[in-house]
Amino acid sequence: MLYYGYWRSSAAWRCRIAFNLKKIAPEFVAVHLTRDGGAQRTEEFRVINPQKRVPALDLNGAVLTQSLAIIEWLEETIPEPALLPDDPWSRAQVRAFALAIACDIHPLQNLEVQQYLRGKLNLEQSAVSDWLGHWIGNGLLACEALLGSQPSNQAFAFGASPTLADICLAPQLYSAERFGISLNDMPRLRTLGASYADHPAFVDAHAHNQPDSEEWFWGI
Amino acid sequence: MLYYGYWRSSAAWRCRIAFNLKKIAPEFVAVHLTRDGGAQRTEEFRVINPQKRVPALDLNGAVLTQSLAIIEWLEETIPEPALLPDDPWSRAQVRAFALAIACDIHPLQNLEVQQYLRGKLNLEQSAVSDWLGHWIGNGLLACEALLGSQPSNQAFAFGASPTLADICLAPQLYSAERFGISLNDMPRLRTLGASYADHPAFVDAHAHNQPDSEEWFWGI
Repeated sequence: MLYYGYWRSSAAWRCRIAFNLKKIAPEFVAVHLTRDGGAQRTEEFRVINPQKRVPALDLNGAVLTQSLAIIEWLEETIPEPALLPDDPWSRAQVRAFALAIACDIHPLQNLEVQQYLRGKLNLEQSAVSDWLGHWIGNGLLACEALLGSQPSNQAFAFGASPTLADICLAPQLYSAERFGISLNDMPRLRTLGASYADHPAFVDAHAHNQPDSEEWFWGI
Repeated sequence: MLYYGYWRSSAAWRCRIAFNLKKIAPEFVAVHLTRDGGAQRTEEFRVINPQKRVPALDLNGAVLTQSLAIIEWLEETIPEPALLPDDPWSRAQVRAFALAIACDIHPLQNLEVQQYLRGKLNLEQSAVSDWLGHWIGNGLLACEALLGSQPSNQAFAFGASPTLADICLAPQLYSAERFGISLNDMPRLRTLGASYADHPAFVDAHAHNQPDSEEWFWGI
């Protein structure tokens, strides 16, 4: 199994956490998203994923894209440890939290959008920062509220063990820090961030601990 | 069961198709997204969904948000007719297609983003149209390619009956038309659009056929 990813892609990062939790290690193929216009935009990669995005999973020549689809597939084929609760309503709550990040925060901060804002729209850095602050800040505030009915002493978002919700939140918290978004009003999310920093599957999947990691910088 | 929605919200529309296919009829509560600053932004609605978005499903006071989480919950609690194939790899392909729309197209065209582009960034209509054309046009081209390995004579994206993929595609095709995006290079998507126009569950869920539908217009 081949896994096409990039150290700082939030979506690829989600998959890495899931691989670690499920104790599998697909062979990694680095797709450099920014060098020379982006390896994801080459004809060679377009054949793998017409969306020109990472992650992609190649299983004997058949390709699966989209981080949440990959993780749901892992969940169905390698059930333990479970990344979703047992009962349907709880599963739905975990998925809703994950989707609040994957659909309503991450798509507005990703590389391609930032390139459009800086390139085609010619926005100044301050306007790009306002954009990121708006979508990430308000999005994470909503996430904090979505956890309002959960006991605050849980190590993970929906219980004692990590779920799809945590898998999506961990890279998003990193992006928040990277883009200078304050988590002051989000005590629950800060506590979860501390849990992730202590969990081997999350630490190993961290952007800074990948074979293709580069020196951390704030630009895109 | 209460369903909070809005006639032209793509995400709410997805749920309506799923309700129809599963033959349930939750009581509808209209949330007008544009009148008086948007009913989704009131304190009253924030208690229902801190994301200030539709759809939301209220089941005896417990609330579930996010269209794909709602539909996966329906799939798990009302299995027939199935909206996902049986085998895990095929399920993943359907989910990947749905997510390519729900994560990579729709979030960049939705009302809140357009309001930001026009309001905070003060973009002219032509620049907003370019933005929509870029994300919707390229996104749907990728969707066309993602269906490349599917037989072209299927009535629906992944077979003879509708799946989560079709549920996400139908409202997105409407948005493409609304925003003037050409589907000339997407023969497969055009054929699928014709299937939806013929299927009662899709017709009944159409934006124009809702209790809160307003005269169709191109603005936001």
